[in-house]
Amino acid sequence: MNADTPRTVSISPRSADRVPPAVILAAGAGVRLREGNGGRPKPLTELLGLSLLERSILSCRAAGVDECYVVVGYAQERIVHLIDELEARHGISITVVRNPNWETGNGSSALAAVSHLTDPFLLLMCDHVFDPAILRLLMTAADESDSCLLAVDRHTDRIFDLEDATKVRLDGQLITAIGKELTPFDGVDTGLFLCSPALLSALEKPTGSGKRSLTRAVRHLINQGKIKAVDVGDRFWLDVDTPESLSDARRVLLAKLAKPSEDGFVARWLNRRVSLRLSSYLASTHLSPGAITLASFVIALSGAALFAVGSYLWTVLAGLLVQFASIVDGCDGEIARLKFQTSRFGAWADTVLDRYADVAVVTGISLGHWQTHPTAFTLLGAVLALTGFILASYTKKEYELRYGSKPPSGLLARLSKRDMRLFVLFAGALLNRPFEAMVLTGAVSHLAVGAHFLTASRDRRLSEPRLP
Amino acid sequence: MNADTPRTVSISPRSADRVPPAVILAAGAGVRLREGNGGRPKPLTELLGLSLLERSILSCRAAGVDECYVVVGYAQERIVHLIDELEARHGISITVVRNPNWETGNGSSALAAVSHLTDPFLLLMCDHVFDPAILRLLMTAADESDSCLLAVDRHTDRIFDLEDATKVRLDGQLITAIGKELTPFDGVDTGLFLCSPALLSALEKPTGSGKRSLTRAVRHLINQGKIKAVDVGDRFWLDVDTPESLSDARRVLLAKLAKPSEDGFVARWLNRRVSLRLSSYLASTHLSPGAITLASFVIALSGAALFAVGSYLWTVLAGLLVQFASIVDGCDGEIARLKFQTSRFGAWADTVLDRYADVAVVTGISLGHWQTHPTAFTLLGAVLALTGFILASYTKKEYELRYGSKPPSGLLARLSKRDMRLFVLFAGALLNRPFEAMVLTGAVSHLAVGAHFLTASRDRRLSEPRLP
Repeated sequence: MNADTPRTVSISPRSADRVPPAVILAAGAGVRLREGNGGRPKPLTELLGLSLLERSILSCRAAGVDECYVVVGYAQERIVHLIDELEARHGISITVVRNPNWETGNGSSALAAVSHLTDPFLLLMCDHVFDPAILRLLMTAADESDSCLLAVDRHTDRIFDLEDATKVRLDGQLITAIGKELTPFDGVDTGLFLCSPALLSALEKPTGSGKRSLTRAVRHLINQGKIKAVDVGDRFWLDVDTPESLSDARRVLLAKLAKPSEDGFVARWLNRRVSLRLSSYLASTHLSPGAITLASFVIALSGAALFAVGSYLWTVLAGLLVQFASIVDGCDGEIARLKFQTSRFGAWADTVLDRYADVAVVTGISLGHWQTHPTAFTLLGAVLALTGFILASYTKKEYELRYGSKPPSGLLARLSKRDMRLFVLFAGALLNRPFEAMVLTGAVSHLAVGAHFLTASRDRRLSEPRLP
Repeated sequence: MNADTPRTVSISPRSADRVPPAVILAAGAGVRLREGNGGRPKPLTELLGLSLLERSILSCRAAGVDECYVVVGYAQERIVHLIDELEARHGISITVVRNPNWETGNGSSALAAVSHLTDPFLLLMCDHVFDPAILRLLMTAADESDSCLLAVDRHTDRIFDLEDATKVRLDGQLITAIGKELTPFDGVDTGLFLCSPALLSALEKPTGSGKRSLTRAVRHLINQGKIKAVDVGDRFWLDVDTPESLSDARRVLLAKLAKPSEDGFVARWLNRRVSLRLSSYLASTHLSPGAITLASFVIALSGAALFAVGSYLWTVLAGLLVQFASIVDGCDGEIARLKFQTSRFGAWADTVLDRYADVAVVTGISLGHWQTHPTAFTLLGAVLALTGFILASYTKKEYELRYGSKPPSGLLARLSKRDMRLFVLFAGALLNRPFEAMVLTGAVSHLAVGAHFLTASRDRRLSEPRLP
């Protein structure tokens, strides 16, 4: 392995101002994948609710790309039909480039698109699943030279099918050799390029066999010293060629949805495990993240109503519903991230409905307790829990607004997170002590606010900025 | 009036990187002010809790200045004693420059300090009260030339004693003439400079009379075309020379504390009018903003406790206390801004304690109502009001976090602000209907959340950013 890590080159003002168009190659037959796919063309292969082509286009858009060219060849009518649908659904403009010579190789598909373009452009294959941040990396690394940039993965130990991958050898930032059989090698070609128009002449070179492969054109540019590597670091990408790699992509995309740094104990060890399974099913339905948010809210409301009845049987059922609502509450965000449907409104509405769901559950438990204990202590217990639940979250938001960063998270803060609070209510319901469980977790929430107050007060001398 | 507005010149990298030191002239006798001031030296004259000198130094610090030189002459021992105190209290470093020739004019005081300095520096008079933003304007306008910059006010209609002010005439950005008797003129000299070392040679010029005035040195630089104007725009500044101008400064500083864009109806028409009077008294005490926050909290808690008793007399007293707490709640911020004591922790703690005070008041009113109505409806009313009060605030904070700006404020939002809520509770107490008033204002708060939800939901297509 070469010890020199490729570095990003200086950011040119142009690259910061303008986002290049993207060319997506979707013309091949994809024989290996088709076998396990009911004969569906590769770009239409579904992966967690999105076809591979749709995922590529939405990944480009997430990186800020406005203009997409999709090159089609094999089964083009079905693919063009999908593209029309995507344009209507997402309100983005996609140019279809038909390549009659698609069977001569992916070089001819690239050539068909490149002749439409005079400025630098992104080039990707529709069967590559990747973190949109890699496209931003390429744009940031762009310089004014006529070199092409290739995103390269140096963590070769994590490649699913290393044997089948295209390897590259590096000299500093320059790529000096490319090939499947290359040894030794320094990294793997991710198939994500930022190309200069120099690629056109390399693609146009006459070939003896009549075959036009992209790798051949790339090799030509390498010989001219015109391809630089951009290290993708820890950002994920996957090449989906076979039914096995499709399963692997599914596994990796789902695993990336957990949030180890934010999830509480219960979220981590219980809720996330169930919600990810649920999401992998929900992704293939047409349910929107907003509908799932609403479903979680309605489930919690049902639980609240059953708690108000008061008898043990209904209480246990109520506890189950509340814990289930807590699990479903993870799915909306998971689906939104999986299907590029995240939105500020969605995140805001989710948080506000969570608070109202908490209010309903506390009210339900208090009314249930009221059946047997119609005293002022029931009222005080309700107030304690209600305010604890809301204020534990409130003080954190307010801190974030004032300080511009999330507050430090101690044990009490993690114990007063929503996943834990609802789990304690569930456990309390099983023990037929939901009110006591509610008062306990409400008290812990207030303690968390108090602890937070003490910490912030102690640190205030150190952390105050100079300017008012 | 000259139609050319002076514009800020390009920002040099140097000015963004380094904050220049400040020279504060505090050597004069200030005869006119002393007469109405019990003979106290001018720099020690108190204005709303801070001496003029302390206010100058803290204004410099608020603008990011690290290093202050204070030139002393008249009554220097008392002033040096104050400076020692300020260094200890605020942890800032101040260099004292003693000017034995202070009686020959402020030019000699400037000269005494300038000989310590080789780089550009800010120059100000300790009897000028000003918005620290003006110093930032000067720093931003700094260029690499050896010109001096003078902050100029073109709104001459707002000058307190225009006759006594020093006027300037402009040619574009260049100052072409200066003097008290100048006609016509384009603006007024605010006494705030960013000086280049060129000032030194102008100050050093021998004078026939032995008098050294700063205006004379400035006039010399004007003749060389070396003084440019920087327009202060709407930013305030005041020259405190007489007992009358001191009263005016007091009035202007207090008026600047109201927040017309943020204050609710009751805050604007009632609370702010009382709190500003209270603050003008509290400023001269040693009470910190934090102590006032705590006082408001304790007053609200007392009101909550009296509400719990339930009889009419106690209820009226409770209502009065709660309304008084609402007024005092404005004073902490006012004092903090008046005395340069704002802090993130203070703002955060104030907001969190406000929520806890609200919780206490709702609990008190509910317990009071319980005395005569021990039913589940009392519990439900408490829940409704409590959650309305907290969630109206919560949803706004969450919106600000997600969208990076405050939510649009409609009528319902303004009716559910804290000043209005507490006022309604006060009015309800007078009518012996605190519980009903509480349920009403709780319901309005929930409606405000609902309205906010609808608006955000309707706008979401327009306002969503492209990148997730």
